[in-house]
Amino acid sequence: MSLLELFVMSYPTATLLLSCPDRPGIAAAVTSYLFERGTNVVHAEQHVDVQAGIFFQRVEVEIENLSGTLDEFEIGFAVIAESFAMEFKIRLSTERPRVAILCSKQGHCTYDLLARWSLGEIPAQLAFVASNHETLREPTERAGYDFHHLPVDPANKELQQETLRRLLVDNDIDLVIMARYMQVLPARVVDLFPSQIINIHHSFLPAFPGSKPYHQAHARGVKLIGVTAHYATVALDEGPIIEQEVIRVTHRHSPEELVQKGRDLETIVLARAVKAHINNQVLVYGNKTVVFG
Amino acid sequence: MSLLELFVMSYPTATLLLSCPDRPGIAAAVTSYLFERGTNVVHAEQHVDVQAGIFFQRVEVEIENLSGTLDEFEIGFAVIAESFAMEFKIRLSTERPRVAILCSKQGHCTYDLLARWSLGEIPAQLAFVASNHETLREPTERAGYDFHHLPVDPANKELQQETLRRLLVDNDIDLVIMARYMQVLPARVVDLFPSQIINIHHSFLPAFPGSKPYHQAHARGVKLIGVTAHYATVALDEGPIIEQEVIRVTHRHSPEELVQKGRDLETIVLARAVKAHINNQVLVYGNKTVVFG
Amino acid sequence: MSLLELFVMSYPTATLLLSCPDRPGIAAAVTSYLFERGTNVVHAEQHVDVQAGIFFQRVEVEIENLSGTLDEFEIGFAVIAESFAMEFKIRLSTERPRVAILCSKQGHCTYDLLARWSLGEIPAQLAFVASNHETLREPTERAGYDFHHLPVDPANKELQQETLRRLLVDNDIDLVIMARYMQVLPARVVDLFPSQIINIHHSFLPAFPGSKPYHQAHARGVKLIGVTAHYATVALDEGPIIEQEVIRVTHRHSPEELVQKGRDLETIVLARAVKAHINNQVLVYGNKTVVFG
Amino acid sequence: MSLLELFVMSYPTATLLLSCPDRPGIAAAVTSYLFERGTNVVHAEQHVDVQAGIFFQRVEVEIENLSGTLDEFEIGFAVIAESFAMEFKIRLSTERPRVAILCSKQGHCTYDLLARWSLGEIPAQLAFVASNHETLREPTERAGYDFHHLPVDPANKELQQETLRRLLVDNDIDLVIMARYMQVLPARVVDLFPSQIINIHHSFLPAFPGSKPYHQAHARGVKLIGVTAHYATVALDEGPIIEQEVIRVTHRHSPEELVQKGRDLETIVLARAVKAHINNQVLVYGNKTVVFG
Repeated sequence: MSLLELFVMSYPTATLLLSCPDRPGIAAAVTSYLFERGTNVVHAEQHVDVQAGIFFQRVEVEIENLSGTLDEFEIGFAVIAESFAMEFKIRLSTERPRVAILCSKQGHCTYDLLARWSLGEIPAQLAFVASNHETLREPTERAGYDFHHLPVDPANKELQQETLRRLLVDNDIDLVIMARYMQVLPARVVDLFPSQIINIHHSFLPAFPGSKPYHQAHARGVKLIGVTAHYATVALDEGPIIEQEVIRVTHRHSPEELVQKGRDLETIVLARAVKAHINNQVLVYGNKTVVFG
Repeated sequence: MSLLELFVMSYPTATLLLSCPDRPGIAAAVTSYLFERGTNVVHAEQHVDVQAGIFFQRVEVEIENLSGTLDEFEIGFAVIAESFAMEFKIRLSTERPRVAILCSKQGHCTYDLLARWSLGEIPAQLAFVASNHETLREPTERAGYDFHHLPVDPANKELQQETLRRLLVDNDIDLVIMARYMQVLPARVVDLFPSQIINIHHSFLPAFPGSKPYHQAHARGVKLIGVTAHYATVALDEGPIIEQEVIRVTHRHSPEELVQKGRDLETIVLARAVKAHINNQVLVYGNKTVVFG
Repeated sequence: MSLLELFVMSYPTATLLLSCPDRPGIAAAVTSYLFERGTNVVHAEQHVDVQAGIFFQRVEVEIENLSGTLDEFEIGFAVIAESFAMEFKIRLSTERPRVAILCSKQGHCTYDLLARWSLGEIPAQLAFVASNHETLREPTERAGYDFHHLPVDPANKELQQETLRRLLVDNDIDLVIMARYMQVLPARVVDLFPSQIINIHHSFLPAFPGSKPYHQAHARGVKLIGVTAHYATVALDEGPIIEQEVIRVTHRHSPEELVQKGRDLETIVLARAVKAHINNQVLVYGNKTVVFG
Repeated sequence: MSLLELFVMSYPTATLLLSCPDRPGIAAAVTSYLFERGTNVVHAEQHVDVQAGIFFQRVEVEIENLSGTLDEFEIGFAVIAESFAMEFKIRLSTERPRVAILCSKQGHCTYDLLARWSLGEIPAQLAFVASNHETLREPTERAGYDFHHLPVDPANKELQQETLRRLLVDNDIDLVIMARYMQVLPARVVDLFPSQIINIHHSFLPAFPGSKPYHQAHARGVKLIGVTAHYATVALDEGPIIEQEVIRVTHRHSPEELVQKGRDLETIVLARAVKAHINNQVLVYGNKTVVFG
């Protein structure tokens, strides 16, 4: 158990993430309830999208002195939620959601995620790694995780997708990480996991969607290259953006060197997005996200 | 009147900035009061420094439907504040605090601030610019602002400081901006304006305090140079930091080129700190700041 | 005269910027010639685009001990250039190219450039500022520069463009800066100034070309906004990119706040591109640039 | 063999890195020699530190059509070098220097380096990983590399250092990477590997040298934290800086969270410095470096 894990176990907190149509009194109702239940707010942030008329809030509370059980706490909150037509999620800092990594041949994101899991940096359970190639079986199994090879060929495409879907469902997966998976997920997978599939695209979207974005960037002569972590939707590279980052490049860099430089960005931005999601910091509305700090 | 100003006038908001010893119920009390008074929260953020046991909050509310007067609102809030041993400031978006700029010979920060005032970007009144040199009189007066020349020499140092002090007091100054003033302010000025004097230091503090920081940075061979905006205290370059930024440099840059590159950083970081202060985003505690987003 | 100017006057250098089809011996021929002529290399960089087979070089030399006149130096170099089918430009550090600024109503870039000229930061002559609005006449004339009002309406569009073209030609303009001019320049102006018109576009191109890019960026929910300085071509927002920069934004920022945040980026990136161009650091090939450090 | 490796093998280049007292004619002599020997310059950069009077150059050449052997090439160049009192290093792109990693308990840098080796990203041979703790034996051996446990206690300190020294010498190590080793290397090790030991320090040096820099940074309330990769010297945290990077933090981050945020910076900055060193991009002079792009 890492120090971070030990810390989390000793001082459990609950994070409340919610949104609803804006109207006066929401914040007062929420904070009053949290106070009555004996919790203490450690950090809170709320925001109103004035144009869209939506209220967003994230509250992190210490629950050491919670009056009653967690179930009672949640049931009580559901009453408030209903009166404001709220959608909400509560996450305990001790929870460990179940995660699946999808990858292909390129290893940098998967190596990085495996290292973070080995170091206890990600508060989640890694259920398995699946890939359409065998390339990353060895590092996955060496790190002690299950690996599933799901080869794709034109003839079996639908069958492969169905196998993947079942694997995700049978393993009670809460979050799917596309760590440079390079395959489009079909609607029947995407629809099962709304705002639960994170993809890393190797460009600063909406610039350079589609394939070979570093080569596109090189051809256009941009002075910065970027990467984008976003929730997967059926429309390729168009889902809600969670995190983006860029790095400076010059005329000296060949497309191959852009690929090299981009690798570090991809691993970091994907890891940041995964952590933000697991820490209950991300709310999706329309095709956008609110990412609380 | 700029579009920004027009917007602010049409949709007035109030910003509440507060801190107090942490204990359960603070957030509930504050938000309930704001709700009862008919205000609507647009954005709010609260934070607890768990080690120090201090609660910090910034709340921005629409006051279109305020029940009662602003004075009544403030008096009512003072009651809550007292019960929690709170320090607080309320700022209306229509307020225009009075600002003085102190400068020396180097013009980049002052030119930049004058331009921002001309463009209506800073929601404050510029009372005057004062300097120990005549260099920046012309651009100041051309832009329509008062300029005071307060020459310094070893013989008159105390007298000059006293003249400055009186100028600040007589003009009801709320915020002093040291735009590369290059003179140390004495305790009798600093003490009059606690957390109301913003200085820009041309290094990434605490690296390279004191004079000629770009030359120090060059000698040390750093790969990034930085600047720091902080509240002035009697201890030179040691006050609470409000904002910092860096830029990449290489072996190619001479000290003179570092000075050139640093200029843009200085103007931007100083402007950011000034805006954050005026928008009631900055709370000082100990030798640190909370800067709400 | 600023310190920078004084420095440049006292230690004159020449910068040679060249490109040609790659083949062995180019660097040897160039450096040998520079040595024979008594110059001393201060900084040099050369690069080969291996795919395109083009050689690029920038050399900065001290010319204190030049043997012969500058004209002889240039004539001698032309012989080498011809033998390698080279295109080249030589710029003396004491030269002051003639610049025109085009702007519209928004003032931030123009105020910033005027300040840089007042502070002696740009080694060029500002011939005039021209605009389709009167808004920026006052700050321009206060700073001591000529202002031309060239109003546009649907009826006079061609006439206005012709007036502008003549103004640029009659004033021997070497560089045109579009400081948020908001008007498309017609081919008959663009073609006269190949790679001599710098535009600032307020997005990270190729994302969000066209109008209201900050609003487009807000609608897409990006986590970074950017700006792009590029040479103007007849295809809107598609010319060779000189410089780009981004800044982090969050869900909290309204489109209006993105506009505010973008301003500082625009002024800085435009100023960087202008300086790079004037310092003979930029080579255009195809639709891309080589920008030497 | 990775694609990168394959590429390097197929198109071998040589990189020449040199410095000498500045005087006219150096560049001409070097480029003429390179041309005569049948090499073709792919990229070159030269720089003069005018204050110090030192000339620096890095040239990368294709050696497909080299006339004569590499030994003859090097002997021929040594003649030129002598006449200019030059120090120089030649590196072939096919060379694989021998590297040792030193680490302690914290695994993030070592995991990251092991992954880069597994992915064929670092053009060098990893001879072994050594540590004063057993913590990282497992991931090292799983990845197929030797691990040496060199425990330290107050009684055996000198003996341990001697064991380490011999291990480095016996393994013909060219580069030592201190991947958060947390032990000071004694002069008898440092002196054996001048500018061949790279350390990662978890602060933006010269700010916060010594131990617990993130805690120091937290106490000072900085708004950016940084890391520094530098060559180790006997003076702790004072060697020549190779690379630095920073990341934004806020009042919200506890010291523990700064530690977390800093990890990604440490791995990336260390990896960048290691790559720059191995690619013959770094020259040390005085207590500074020239890092060619």
